[in-house]
Amino acid sequence: MPEMFTVLPPSDALKVLLDQLPPMVRNENIATIDALDRTLAERPLAPHALPAFARSTMDGYAVRAEDTFGATEQMPAYLEVIGEVPMGRAPLLAVGRAEAAVAYTGGMIPAGADAVVMVERTQKLDDTGIEVLRPVAAGENVIGVGEDVGEGDELFQAGHTLRPQDLGGLLALGITQVSVAARPRVAIISTGDEIVPPEAAPGPGQIRDINSYTIAALVTRAGGTPLPCGIVGDHYPSLLNAARAALAEADVLVLSAGSSVSARDLTAQVVNELGAPGVLVHGVALKPGKPAILGVCHGKPVLGLPGNPVSAMVVARIFLVPVLGRLVGLARPPVPRLVAARLTHNVPSVPGREDYLQVSLSERDGELWAEPVFGKSNLIYTLVRSDGMLRVPLNSSGLYQNQQVDVELF
Amino acid sequence: MPEMFTVLPPSDALKVLLDQLPPMVRNENIATIDALDRTLAERPLAPHALPAFARSTMDGYAVRAEDTFGATEQMPAYLEVIGEVPMGRAPLLAVGRAEAAVAYTGGMIPAGADAVVMVERTQKLDDTGIEVLRPVAAGENVIGVGEDVGEGDELFQAGHTLRPQDLGGLLALGITQVSVAARPRVAIISTGDEIVPPEAAPGPGQIRDINSYTIAALVTRAGGTPLPCGIVGDHYPSLLNAARAALAEADVLVLSAGSSVSARDLTAQVVNELGAPGVLVHGVALKPGKPAILGVCHGKPVLGLPGNPVSAMVVARIFLVPVLGRLVGLARPPVPRLVAARLTHNVPSVPGREDYLQVSLSERDGELWAEPVFGKSNLIYTLVRSDGMLRVPLNSSGLYQNQQVDVELF
Repeated sequence: MPEMFTVLPPSDALKVLLDQLPPMVRNENIATIDALDRTLAERPLAPHALPAFARSTMDGYAVRAEDTFGATEQMPAYLEVIGEVPMGRAPLLAVGRAEAAVAYTGGMIPAGADAVVMVERTQKLDDTGIEVLRPVAAGENVIGVGEDVGEGDELFQAGHTLRPQDLGGLLALGITQVSVAARPRVAIISTGDEIVPPEAAPGPGQIRDINSYTIAALVTRAGGTPLPCGIVGDHYPSLLNAARAALAEADVLVLSAGSSVSARDLTAQVVNELGAPGVLVHGVALKPGKPAILGVCHGKPVLGLPGNPVSAMVVARIFLVPVLGRLVGLARPPVPRLVAARLTHNVPSVPGREDYLQVSLSERDGELWAEPVFGKSNLIYTLVRSDGMLRVPLNSSGLYQNQQVDVELF
Repeated sequence: MPEMFTVLPPSDALKVLLDQLPPMVRNENIATIDALDRTLAERPLAPHALPAFARSTMDGYAVRAEDTFGATEQMPAYLEVIGEVPMGRAPLLAVGRAEAAVAYTGGMIPAGADAVVMVERTQKLDDTGIEVLRPVAAGENVIGVGEDVGEGDELFQAGHTLRPQDLGGLLALGITQVSVAARPRVAIISTGDEIVPPEAAPGPGQIRDINSYTIAALVTRAGGTPLPCGIVGDHYPSLLNAARAALAEADVLVLSAGSSVSARDLTAQVVNELGAPGVLVHGVALKPGKPAILGVCHGKPVLGLPGNPVSAMVVARIFLVPVLGRLVGLARPPVPRLVAARLTHNVPSVPGREDYLQVSLSERDGELWAEPVFGKSNLIYTLVRSDGMLRVPLNSSGLYQNQQVDVELF
């Protein structure tokens, strides 16, 4: 049971954790229309070309391009209109030399034709005759077969997260089912003799559970399914039993530890007992969030979050969210929502530790300013009053007033 | 029926639309734990102070600060430990002069005590005696009553969208139900004689419906509930009936028009017939998306999107998403996910028109580059192959190679 009570930088700590995780992705087949923001577990291929037939991109006349060569307003080309291309059906007509067929945007190009003249570039002569005032090249105003996607083309890589247009792209090809990574189930246990559920009226010395819900919401946002497992007191056998039962049902276990040193040690003990290798990282060079515990038990990640709500959120954002990305096989990490702002105050830090600072944003003289929300990390409203957080890098001794910074929005 | 067939800049067009909308917010009471990303319809107040009792922020000893004044390692203060503060219960003891009580992080401060000495700043003398090696000030290592939130404090403004920590903040105060804006129901009708459902095998000249699904997904992401209403041919009475039935069930109606000029005129006719004032904007100085139709019928927004999938997405992002924000009473527009990149190519444009260009992002030499994905706007894979889009402002004649640009991610 390799317990390393060293204090690793956050990125090293995350690597230690991820390196011990098997590629534990469960897949499921779901309807494409329900697959928004889900991550593909397969590389779908185009079953046919798109479009499957040549289509007009304009309202006008389907023609043989060569019949329009040299046409000008002074010397127009004369064409005979032989009929109309119906929408949604194959045209029965074929366009011959010096002939044209009325064609609408999206309509199928009839046999014989190879281009479309926009209606604005023509003039009606009589019931069936038109003048073409400018030449068109072959293929002009036409989408050719396979111009969007060729038959057999790889549409997406596995690990791609589906956006609105991706659903459209799949459905356009008749791909109505896709294989995606199952949402990781994240069991969450809040521990502490002083914790009661939100609906309870806390007695003296009791506080309501916060972390179960903030972490559950973060899991939802990150594409997982939270499994809230309630509150367990700081009692080793109870906590071990609850943790064992929760881990059996879940892909990830999160223990929101009590805040005292002994409560945190209890968490570490439980993680070690749950299964090998147990605790991998106990303590991270991170503020807030130093007492974070990262472990793996029987191939499943187990995280011990500090009890303070601010620390718990920071640790969950830094470690739990990437773990979920790993479990669904994300090809690329999600792009954080960053906004650039200038700092209103000096922010001291200590080299060798990564700091996360809560800030609120406000506009002043057309510029965005980030103002630190200083508050003890046991105060949830420190987070509520903040718009985002600011990373003070590991080897920085702080940030300076007026400095340009990137704020990661909540 | 004010039909303005002028071509307005997008921001003016949006203003015309929003100005005609009544503040049409339906509210509903839901469980706070289900309220992630929902928008508050009320200004919740704190029913009590948080914390409700003074709590220790450290493991150590609750003391009277004055008993430690002047303490040093050479001249420690001697205190008698009279017991332990239990977690989650009111301590039965009271701390008197020269007394101390064992206190854990999160524990209630007992009567008489006003500070906590960290255990690291003490030394055990015997079973009940300790030495305090440094003084503490009154209030040190203690969170006072109401230090997080005072009783009666306004917790959020109406129009605030709830984030994970906000749920925690509400639940910490026992607020287990909140009043939020109902999700706007967005009816979506795809029109066109050539359109078939995704599960159908298209015959010659037919294509599968894309826009119903891309728009539905965009609505979901923007916090609305899509109501897909199927496909209707380019036939005025059918379209009018379908639109009327859909609008009766919905808060917003989106018509994804056929792509021909006549099909678009049909949409405008239907919007005018559906109810006053009808079409407000027909045509926007926008590429792609110029043929957009914006209307209001009986107080409900009705949007006519161009049939081309790229144009439809651009118009929906620019007009439909802000309409949904308005209908839920958003206090602040959502912050777009922007990334800064350099442009790989010149991008010509025309002053007087706002252009949206699809781009793909790639890293080269440690820099992010945005490469235009040139493709006809009827090709859905133009969007699929893009990571985001780039706005070329109304009065710009283009963007230049190597220029720094902000890409709005999809």
